[in-house]
This record gives sequence, structure tokens and C-alpha cells, in this order.
Amino acid sequence: MKPVFSMDQTWLQCINCGLKADLLAERQFVCHSCGGLFDVEHDSSVIEAMESVAGLKRIFARSMTDFSASSPNFEQSGVWRYHELIMPYLPSEYIVSLAEGNVPILRAGNNLCRWVGTNNLWIILEGMTPTGSFKDFGGTVLMSIAKAAGVKAVICASTGDTSAMAAAYAAAAGIKCGVILPAGKVTAVQLAQPLVHGATVITLPGTFDDCMRVVRELVSKYGVYPANSLNPARIEGHQVTSFQIAQFFGWNMPNWIALPVGNGSNCSSVGKGMRLLKRLKFVPETSRILGCQSEAACPLARSFFRQEPDDDRTWQSAYKPMKVGETTATAARIGDPVSAKKVMREITESNGQMTIAKEQDLNEAVAVCGRDGIFVCPQTGIALAGIRDAISIGFISRDETVVAVSTATGLKFTESATRHLEGQIIKLDNCRTDSVAAILEI
Amino acid sequence: MKPVFSMDQTWLQCINCGLKADLLAERQFVCHSCGGLFDVEHDSSVIEAMESVAGLKRIFARSMTDFSASSPNFEQSGVWRYHELIMPYLPSEYIVSLAEGNVPILRAGNNLCRWVGTNNLWIILEGMTPTGSFKDFGGTVLMSIAKAAGVKAVICASTGDTSAMAAAYAAAAGIKCGVILPAGKVTAVQLAQPLVHGATVITLPGTFDDCMRVVRELVSKYGVYPANSLNPARIEGHQVTSFQIAQFFGWNMPNWIALPVGNGSNCSSVGKGMRLLKRLKFVPETSRILGCQSEAACPLARSFFRQEPDDDRTWQSAYKPMKVGETTATAARIGDPVSAKKVMREITESNGQMTIAKEQDLNEAVAVCGRDGIFVCPQTGIALAGIRDAISIGFISRDETVVAVSTATGLKFTESATRHLEGQIIKLDNCRTDSVAAILEI
Repeated sequence: MKPVFSMDQTWLQCINCGLKADLLAERQFVCHSCGGLFDVEHDSSVIEAMESVAGLKRIFARSMTDFSASSPNFEQSGVWRYHELIMPYLPSEYIVSLAEGNVPILRAGNNLCRWVGTNNLWIILEGMTPTGSFKDFGGTVLMSIAKAAGVKAVICASTGDTSAMAAAYAAAAGIKCGVILPAGKVTAVQLAQPLVHGATVITLPGTFDDCMRVVRELVSKYGVYPANSLNPARIEGHQVTSFQIAQFFGWNMPNWIALPVGNGSNCSSVGKGMRLLKRLKFVPETSRILGCQSEAACPLARSFFRQEPDDDRTWQSAYKPMKVGETTATAARIGDPVSAKKVMREITESNGQMTIAKEQDLNEAVAVCGRDGIFVCPQTGIALAGIRDAISIGFISRDETVVAVSTATGLKFTESATRHLEGQIIKLDNCRTDSVAAILEI
Repeated sequence: MKPVFSMDQTWLQCINCGLKADLLAERQFVCHSCGGLFDVEHDSSVIEAMESVAGLKRIFARSMTDFSASSPNFEQSGVWRYHELIMPYLPSEYIVSLAEGNVPILRAGNNLCRWVGTNNLWIILEGMTPTGSFKDFGGTVLMSIAKAAGVKAVICASTGDTSAMAAAYAAAAGIKCGVILPAGKVTAVQLAQPLVHGATVITLPGTFDDCMRVVRELVSKYGVYPANSLNPARIEGHQVTSFQIAQFFGWNMPNWIALPVGNGSNCSSVGKGMRLLKRLKFVPETSRILGCQSEAACPLARSFFRQEPDDDRTWQSAYKPMKVGETTATAARIGDPVSAKKVMREITESNGQMTIAKEQDLNEAVAVCGRDGIFVCPQTGIALAGIRDAISIGFISRDETVVAVSTATGLKFTESATRHLEGQIIKLDNCRTDSVAAILEI
């Protein structure tokens, strides 16, 4: 059988030692030689010859309204709008899409601008996707590669956005999906998305580490495909955050892009995407990345600030995993991020910064954003609190443009959002209209 | 002060007696003469003179990618894409938008096609909006008119999508929002959206009827603006469902549009929008409307089928409110729909049909849709089960094209969606990889 694409067109490459591997055959997603992380690489000389940058910019202006009933679903996708950049050699017949990724980039409202301390702030709402989180940007690419690779089953050990994404896209692809969890740790309602999307949800009488071991063995011994952050096919889709932002700013990057950093896949991808845009001359300059973590889970930011000017340790050697604390931002509660080295690479290359958000501040950010009509998740709160801190410290000046990445809809976090708001419900002791009018001050 | 627009440009008109009223000054939203419902009407001769249909079609092709950082938020809106049709005389400075309404129209997946019995099926995903339901299509128009009318506060008595929409858009507009509810009937988590968006949530020691009385008195005596279905400004925005579908099918309507009918605002709007498109010669023919209700709440469908051929009663005179039963489709659990007469008008004019979905079928429809990767609400389940019934009865033939309107994201209904799925979680008694592999059959 003819391969979908050749290893001269698209391949995996170790970010440490440069070893190449086959994206379609690979299952481990760590370098077989040195254990390093892989990047996906494409032969861009072919792309450059195929179309001029101006021509590609015209292609990327393909609109939401060009598609029609005779078009396949992916033509409505804000991710596959950039097919030529994210996976140029993948024939469209393999694309698994739920028309994800045409998300708004909103100018921040008055309350948020006041709270953060700048008017030059936008938010890209990556929760307005089929499964309600930014994971769909990567999910559509991951599942398309899985389909092209002839994968029979995907697997993950996640209680949150990753299992929701994996289950939905596996369903759309007609591929089996397994979700493995420690028994007694999550409720059926928390697992609503994997269950509705027909994933096989299996609980084990052990710890999360036991589940991860089983996942790794299913991958290595049974050829099952992993849907977690290690899988660099996902990264290719997450780059679209940078592409959409660049296009929105007339093929220029804003001064800063601020993101919450959990396992680090979005931070790595935004950096990789910007570097590609600059190399191909789509944009003159890249943005600086503001990598934002919470007090409860800030292993990368801690080690970032541990690099003293008179210290000859690099960030990488100063890095230590940390024991995570409690936080409402559970999706970024990660003490040893999978993509740590990629995050370090991108923040360093972009001349970026890191911040550590206080728990109270990240929750306050969600509340302030709500007052402008936008319901974001607590992880978005980490990024917004990070921008505020960065402005107050002086990392970011008020005349610089900033885009915050909102990673999920607040609808996935209604409990934490209302925890401090229950007291605001006003319980009247009568049913009189004038009493209500008095409360409303009208 | 110069009015925002004149009553010769945009006005309210009673659907029974033709009495005209001022959209900006009106607060009761029922005819002062006969108590009938109002339509919003525009002087379309001016629109027709302004642009040819071909010119307007070009305007309506304005893309998702034309906007930029210097554009206001509404330029990203899939609702205001049709500014000239929904509110032609409203200056854009009054528009309150959260960039809602650029939603996908997905081809139905394999499982759903098989279950429903047709391959000619699309779903417009109106839950992919800022507050997660189709209400945002109307909400952006309602709140823009409220802003133009100088309204100081909006009010509603709702536990669901309406209060979420009203609170979010009021926040974006800088207008106060009151949500009035009977004490002890809903939890803080169910009220997460109004609370996060800073609405004043007030509980009364009475019934839902007491709350409605207070809302009516706040409107009539205090000039507060109602955000419920009665408000026809909302209807203007909901028409966009028809406009997007028409544009998607190359300015043709599909044979059928199927919708769940609760209070009936979306059904009324889709009909009104199609009539406008046909009158202005945007489309050659309108779709037939399939109005879908659940067994638990089917007052309109019951009376529809009560019209026997040898019976000289009209649908309207055969109509009786009903006492509602239990259903997971709580958002359409309405025994006496506010827009009943408009629903009757549109279904009759479109030569449409109605269906009554069995409770089991509407839940099964949600599950089947999930198996294709799309998580819809139970109300969408009513429409999908309705299409299946209509095909099986012969109302709809298999070669006809059908678009189902999905009214909200399943993320708002995780509890009902998982109620029957909890048993599917597989609880292993060991942590062995081969046991997991056996379950996954790999």
C-alpha cells in the first residue's frame, strides 16, 4: 500500500538529538535514541514553491461563507483553513472534523480592561468549539493522522478536556476510544462527554500512576494510539491559535500572547506556529509569550525565576517538578508538564516571561470577565491575572497589544464559578413588586 | 432628542388587528387594542432601493476573516452579518454583540443518518454561541434595541437559557439585569451563568406565577424591559437561522427545517425569516417547517392533529393549553406557549407538519448524535426524533433535504445525558493491561 505521505514530506524529529521518525508509524512519541520530545516537521520548500506567501494569504482568507451543503464538514473548520501550514501533505479524505475552530477574537470589555490595566487587550475564545475547549484545535489533527495511520483505537487517562476531545473525535472518525481512570475519583456527570460520545470508560482499583502505566503499555504492546499531550500531531493543530491571531491583526503579531501553562501543549504550539509564520515571511516579527501558571502548580515559572543573572544554570537545569496544591484551575494543576522543554524553548526564543497567579486573583479574573458578558474557565483566569501582574511589574507596557488565550468555556466549571457567588442570591421575604424594584434600584 | 429610527422605518404591528406601535417605546409587547402579539416590521422598499438582491448577497458573503483588530466585535457576528435584514435602520453604534452566531451547519454523521432514516440531513449547531444556546441569536438584537431605547434594566423569570442570555448581554451592554425565581426551586450551580454575569438574582417566597406577576408589574409600572419570548426584537435575530441556512444552500431553502417548539420563538422566527427571503426574492421557495414537541409538552401538536378534515374548527380554535408532564427536555416543557399563534401561522403558511416525540426517543436521539461526536441538548433530541417519525409516517420522503436546528449545547444538560449511561462505566477488579486490552477488544 502506498503511504499517505512520505518521510521526506512530513516526519517526526527529536528536539534534542535530531533523530527522525515516521509520524504515521510512531506510537511512543519519545525519541528512541535519547528519550527527547518530538516535533512534527514538514518539507516547506515544497509549500513555498507551491504558492507565494501572498497567494497563501489569499487562500487563508477563505471565508466561513464560501462553504455550502456540497462541502465536507472540514471546509467550515477554522483549523483546516490553514491546511497548507498544519499538515500540507495530508489528503483531505483523511480529515476528521467537527467544523471546529472558527472562534471569535473579542476586544476585552470595560470591566476587564480596568481590572487588568490596559485597553489593548483581546481574548481568543477557544472554548467556543464542539467539545468546549481548545483541545479540539489539536484533536481534529490528531484524529485525522490516526485515521491516515489506520489506527483502530485511541486511549487516554484524563478526567477532563482531553478525554472529551478524544471521545468526540474518535466517534466522528469511527475509531474506538478508551478512557482509563482510577476508581472512585470522578462522578458520571464529570464523565458526561466521554460517555455520550461512546468511549469505553474503564476504572482501575489503583492510582492515576497505575492508569498511566496501563496506557503506556497499551501503546507500546498493543499499538493503541495515545491522545495525550505527548502526541505532536495535536501540536500542529494548536498552532492555529497563532495563525488566527496573525490574520486578525492583518498578518502582524501582537506584542504579547498570554496563555495558561498546564502540560504546555498550547504554549509550545503558539511558539512553533509563530516561528513558522516568521520563517515563511507571513509576519515580520513574532509575539513575546507570557506563560502563566497558578501558585498551586507553577513548576516552570518557579524555575524560570530561579535563573539568576549571575547564575550559570540554565532554565532547563534549574527546573524541578513540584507537588501541586489545591486550585480551582484543575485543568492546569500539573506538577511536571509533559511539554516542559518545548515551553522553555518557546518562551526563551520569543523573549517571553512567566507569571504566577494568586488563587484569589485567577478566580477574580473569571468574575470580572463575567461582568463583561464572557464566561471563561479558571485556566483563562490564570492568563488574565498573569497579564495584570505583568503590567503591574512592568514586563508589559500599557501601549503594547496583548491577546489572552481563553482555553475553555466556563460552562465546564459552573461549580467553582458559583462557589463564592451563592451568597449574592437575594432571598426576599415577600412577593411585592415594590420590594423587587427597590432591590433593583429602579 | 432625535429618535434612533422613525416609526415609518421600523415599527411594531399587531398580528391580529394591525395596530402599530413604537418598538423603542413599547414595554408591554401585546397589542393595546386587542391583546394580540406584535411583529417587528421594517420599510423594505427602502432596503430594496438601497441594494439589489445580488448586491445584498455579496454583502452577506462578508467573511469571518474580513474583520480585524480595528473592527468592533459585531463584525465577527453571524447575526449582524445580516444587519440589513434584521434591523436595517439601527445605527451600528447601538449594537451589543459578543460575536455570536457564526455556527457550523454539519452534515449528520453515520449513526444519526441510520437512526433517522435519511442521508439528506444537516444540523445547525446553535449551541456554539457565547452562552451556549440559540437565545444569543435573539439576545444580541434585543439588547441592542434596549440600548437604543435607553433602557436602564432588563428583567426575566427564567431558570435556563433566557436568564443566561439576558445576564450576559446586559453585562456586555452595561445594563442592569434582574432574574426573579421562586425560592427553593433551583440551585446556585443552575444559576451559574446569571450569577457570573452579575445579574441580580432574587428569589420570592411564592410560585412561578407570583414571579411572572412581579415581572409584568416591573415592566408596566417601572418601565423595566422584558427579556422573554414576548419581546419581538428577539424574533428578528432568530430569523438568522433561516438566513444562514439559505446562504449555506446557495440561496435555496432545504425541503424541511425541523425545530423543537417550546414557547415557539425560534419556530415563529424561522418562518418569518423565510417569508422575508422569498418576498425579497433571495430564495425561490420556502422550506416546510416541522414543529416538534415532546409527549410531556405538546399542546400545539395535539391541537394540530385535532383538526380533522371533516371538522370545521381551525387549528387556532382547537388549541388548548395542557398540563405538562415530566421530560428531560425541560427547556421546552411549556404547556401554553407564548408564541402559539405565531407558530400556527408559520407552520400553516409553510405547509408544515408537527410531531410528538416519545420521551425514550428524544433521549435516544441525543445518545445517537453523541456517537457521531456531537453533544446536543434534549430539545435537539425532540427535533431529531421528530424527523425520524416524520420520515417513518411519510410526511418527509428520503430524497428531501432536512435541516435540524440544535438549540443548545449538551454541556448544559450533563446530568440528564448521563442518567442512563452511568452503568456503562466498566469497573475492573485489577490493574492489568491485558484485562483492559480484552475489554477494548484489541
